Amino acid sequence: MSILVVGSVALDSVKTPFGEKDDALGGSAVYFSVSASYFTDVRMVAVIGRDFPEEHVNLLKKHKIDVDGLQKAEGKTFRWKGEYTYDLNQANTLDTQLNVFASFKPEIPEKYKNSEFIFLANIDPELQKQVVKQVKKPKIVACDTMNFWISGKKKELLETLKLVNILIINEAEARQLTGETNLVKAAAKIRSYGPESVVIKRGEYGALLFSKDHVFSAPAYPLEVINDPTGAGDSFAGGFMGYLAGCGKTDEQSVRQAMIVGSAMASFNVEDFSLGRLSGLSPEMIKTRCGEFRKLTSFEIIK
Amino acid sequence: MSILVVGSVALDSVKTPFGEKDDALGGSAVYFSVSASYFTDVRMVAVIGRDFPEEHVNLLKKHKIDVDGLQKAEGKTFRWKGEYTYDLNQANTLDTQLNVFASFKPEIPEKYKNSEFIFLANIDPELQKQVVKQVKKPKIVACDTMNFWISGKKKELLETLKLVNILIINEAEARQLTGETNLVKAAAKIRSYGPESVVIKRGEYGALLFSKDHVFSAPAYPLEVINDPTGAGDSFAGGFMGYLAGCGKTDEQSVRQAMIVGSAMASFNVEDFSLGRLSGLSPEMIKTRCGEFRKLTSFEIIK
Repeated sequence: MSILVVGSVALDSVKTPFGEKDDALGGSAVYFSVSASYFTDVRMVAVIGRDFPEEHVNLLKKHKIDVDGLQKAEGKTFRWKGEYTYDLNQANTLDTQLNVFASFKPEIPEKYKNSEFIFLANIDPELQKQVVKQVKKPKIVACDTMNFWISGKKKELLETLKLVNILIINEAEARQLTGETNLVKAAAKIRSYGPESVVIKRGEYGALLFSKDHVFSAPAYPLEVINDPTGAGDSFAGGFMGYLAGCGKTDEQSVRQAMIVGSAMASFNVEDFSLGRLSGLSPEMIKTRCGEFRKLTSFEIIK
Repeated sequence: MSILVVGSVALDSVKTPFGEKDDALGGSAVYFSVSASYFTDVRMVAVIGRDFPEEHVNLLKKHKIDVDGLQKAEGKTFRWKGEYTYDLNQANTLDTQLNVFASFKPEIPEKYKNSEFIFLANIDPELQKQVVKQVKKPKIVACDTMNFWISGKKKELLETLKLVNILIINEAEARQLTGETNLVKAAAKIRSYGPESVVIKRGEYGALLFSKDHVFSAPAYPLEVINDPTGAGDSFAGGFMGYLAGCGKTDEQSVRQAMIVGSAMASFNVEDFSLGRLSGLSPEMIKTRCGEFRKLTSFEIIK
């Protein structure tokens, strides 16, 4: 099944201890879409400015991502500038220029309205809600958010969460949203807001899934080379949701596998800047890495 | 096979957001021994003062721990006072009174000298080395250390590591010891110092094992109730080494299982203060929790 994603397309300037890139392709919708494109058809709704390089659109098209929902607006493309020190878990934002993203109103093209799988990347929770309302019969709605919306639009966010099946957020956000330091308690509280499942991303420590019937822990892949963590969370979400949409299933085993696929895609993404690594993968490479996650975690029954 | 442990016996005063205990039984050798006692015979070498309550010795005896190597010295028992805030990963030491521990010289009783499995808990690396030298034919020597020795006695520590098969340390210590922020690189560097395997403990994020042929990631058990993290690392080491000594094996599968057993024992330990939880377990309870770790991490092959 196809998956619909609504989020940002950005030109990122990123500096890490291992290099830097200026005005490189980025944004939540981009990382998500390219990652998901290995598993299913992707429909993207986002906005770009007049300055957006055609080559980036071509990269999306190369991944068979449907960009008919990519609006071109008067003005400049959203820009983010950030820096990471050796603690690669925490980005230090140096500059944010919203540009055309400031007045972004997601319009879902008619032909996307039958989408059953939806990912609401990190945008204003009111816009996230409007997106879901425009889709006819959503089956699985997953969503991300951030500290900015949790502190500034908590009421609206809680309204949106009532329509969400899976919330995918990071550890600090889960704690901020619920006021619980203990993650088991935080996850239970989030599930009481609406989502049946919560995925808590923990950067270099992996991710946890809390569902009604089971808890699953996915490790992060121990990499020797991590060049740029930007987009890791959205690459994870793209692998996770793309895999589920590709299978058309959300049973326990599929969700566990999706957690590993998401972790594998995030592990590829951080190996290079921008889409450098994520856009050049093959199904074989992905399968091999998923196999490495199995080796990393498997053990025989303890009697 | 029996395991020999050399470390501290302490009276701990601990305060966490969930309660506090004064002068409670603690110390690395105690947590290690009680944890290991569920899997194998334990021989303990440590020192206590004249004030050490007989009931604590009885608890060790109840676990069939051989305490003939427990020296009683003139003076008071080692005392540690610490506090944890809601970030349970980091203890804040309020007071340390070394007392009889200051002049501790481990003497290995003759009958312990045939031990094949040894755990050198966190003591002066020079003493750790002397312990190994006193044992006839050690098969597997595992060791722990801390920031204090890494900064103050690095040369001596590196000498000791030449005699060590498995180093079990926490993430920050691995980085401090090697000057590498990346854990894959840090583990490779540690392995170049001598140990064939390195276990890196990451508190609430679990533990990683790096060996010549494989890497293994053990999650931490997602607990809703964590009352006191004191002794988690030593409980882990006790489960890990106790399991290996109990099997008498160190092949890949046994080491992976030992990582899970260690994680299970640490998860029990943090549920209560002092030895409250760790000393009251049954083989069935341990087996059940190890089974829960399997549920937490298992997934079907991704095609």
